[in-house]
Amino acid sequence: MIASFAKTARQEAAVDSFRAAICPTKMTIADLGCSVGPNVLQMASEIIEAIAQASHQLNRRPPEMQVFLNDLPGNDFNTLFSLLPEFYELRETKLQETDQEQVPCFISGVPGSFYVRLFVSKSLHFVYSSNSLHWLSQVPQMQLQDGSEAPLNNKGNVYISHTSPPSVFEAYKKQFKRDFSLFLKCRGEEVVEGGHMVLTFMARRSSDPLAPMDFDGWELLAKALRDMVSLGLTEEEKVDSFNLPWYAPSMEEVKDEITIQGSFAIKKIELFDINWDDNSQEAPRNDHNYNPVAKSTLTMAKASRAVLESMLKSHFGEAIIEKLFERYCFLLEEYYSKYKAEVTNILIVFERK
Amino acid sequence: MIASFAKTARQEAAVDSFRAAICPTKMTIADLGCSVGPNVLQMASEIIEAIAQASHQLNRRPPEMQVFLNDLPGNDFNTLFSLLPEFYELRETKLQETDQEQVPCFISGVPGSFYVRLFVSKSLHFVYSSNSLHWLSQVPQMQLQDGSEAPLNNKGNVYISHTSPPSVFEAYKKQFKRDFSLFLKCRGEEVVEGGHMVLTFMARRSSDPLAPMDFDGWELLAKALRDMVSLGLTEEEKVDSFNLPWYAPSMEEVKDEITIQGSFAIKKIELFDINWDDNSQEAPRNDHNYNPVAKSTLTMAKASRAVLESMLKSHFGEAIIEKLFERYCFLLEEYYSKYKAEVTNILIVFERK
Repeated sequence: MIASFAKTARQEAAVDSFRAAICPTKMTIADLGCSVGPNVLQMASEIIEAIAQASHQLNRRPPEMQVFLNDLPGNDFNTLFSLLPEFYELRETKLQETDQEQVPCFISGVPGSFYVRLFVSKSLHFVYSSNSLHWLSQVPQMQLQDGSEAPLNNKGNVYISHTSPPSVFEAYKKQFKRDFSLFLKCRGEEVVEGGHMVLTFMARRSSDPLAPMDFDGWELLAKALRDMVSLGLTEEEKVDSFNLPWYAPSMEEVKDEITIQGSFAIKKIELFDINWDDNSQEAPRNDHNYNPVAKSTLTMAKASRAVLESMLKSHFGEAIIEKLFERYCFLLEEYYSKYKAEVTNILIVFERK
Repeated sequence: MIASFAKTARQEAAVDSFRAAICPTKMTIADLGCSVGPNVLQMASEIIEAIAQASHQLNRRPPEMQVFLNDLPGNDFNTLFSLLPEFYELRETKLQETDQEQVPCFISGVPGSFYVRLFVSKSLHFVYSSNSLHWLSQVPQMQLQDGSEAPLNNKGNVYISHTSPPSVFEAYKKQFKRDFSLFLKCRGEEVVEGGHMVLTFMARRSSDPLAPMDFDGWELLAKALRDMVSLGLTEEEKVDSFNLPWYAPSMEEVKDEITIQGSFAIKKIELFDINWDDNSQEAPRNDHNYNPVAKSTLTMAKASRAVLESMLKSHFGEAIIEKLFERYCFLLEEYYSKYKAEVTNILIVFERK
């Protein structure tokens, strides 16, 4: 139900972009921070279908669609691309079955950080990004009085925590503001007038970063790391110097940056909760061993691992990884057997001014 | 020197495309069948530089460049993309050093066969393809009298050979005509009026496919496969049923297809010889063990292996591969110690009518 809420927002904004461009014969859309997996193509497909339907209702030919799938150069594009032949084939079959007019669609991969320009000026009609913008361009640094920068003083933690000094929150907030503003500036140059953008990413409900948090996963990761120290598998200093390039902003922080940057108007902004569990897959029938908590934790651990592994490897070395994730998974399971496995997300629908 | 001949043709045609579009603010170029390796980015870079220079001479701002790198979905795009951060960085440094105006350039990967549409209509200013179009879309089939198709009867060979019946040549030629025509049709739809295309791929000097060939590599591969049969490592029937989806056309065959298809005008068409050896790397100084023949063979075997390996694996199984390439390499070395390691290529410069 919650996934369909974001889906509807994307579809509506895509159609609004199509109308704003006065039913163009070609449309370019981009998924920023797409990652890997069938969801990527599913999302693109839903948007294309919405536009096909809208053009049908307006008695126009559906536009040819250029779809750009972006992620960092280290993303596994090979795996993503290996799904394409089947994707194109399925589209073909479905079109023949439903006797619908073909919407030609051309997919390409764009390797690069979305904190720099990725596309030529005024070339995108519609941009969306799901579950990515909480990742910062770098680990925040503290600004010293002489203007130079120094590593965060965040002993035993990997993110803003109750035991972090206020300077840690300030540094994180500042990095988010800088990154998000840059993101908006770049997209502002790339998106055509009237083009839309839909972003969803993790956020927090309170302006106070130390209020009971929606997402406690990083506290548990820090705990797992400290446990590795106790086991003698890594050094305390290594844990102290590791911080995540991640930030969950409040709605106010997001709004402020959008207003200050000025390229986009906000059409909708909302917080919503999503379950870490994969709602699209139901419990297998007759499986008496089915344990929703374990499944939820597994989904969570898998999702985190995909993004975390390379960061952790390069800081702590490869040897620690298996043991660390085993411990992290255990802590997640223990925790989410008591608490709801929910996290807060923000959804923003923008229009290019 | 020979590489620079094709390089100049690409640069001139790219500049002609830029002029034809009356110095656009954005230009889209595509490398079809790009494969992997630093050469890919080198070629793109040379084209961008030529356009930057031309726009400078015309007192225009250089256009923003969208570069599409295409190959089959099985191509190792991950490796190709891993070269991008360094590529962008180098460009940045070079620009700062030379005080040149920045030409923003955005690279993306397009997985798919170039025998179908890959891009939206009228979206490309300049297309180039180097060393790819001799690969057919499929292994040719023989047409039976009742209209149905059957595998080639090409006992002991993997391509047109002196012991092949005439039907084999006919089937290969027909498949090339069909594929090349489709290629031209697709590109005709994608390239803007006045846009250019530069293709280079392997060709033959004679209209007779059984005249002394420029490239004997496939005869040697067939021999290596027959040797595997002698060693009991594979069955004769397996070798008999294996044929390469590859064809080196004559200049007449190429010209005829371009004329019949009709989307493009030929601005230049030439045959030229290239050495399998890598001319860009000279013999290491003071290396008394340097053996130009062995090096040439190694380059050749490596180049063939990259494209051949997956085909051979899926037909003969993985177990045979090491032994087969060892034998193939030996035969190549033996052969090219007697003959020049040269192959004939065709270069065609097109303009979209």
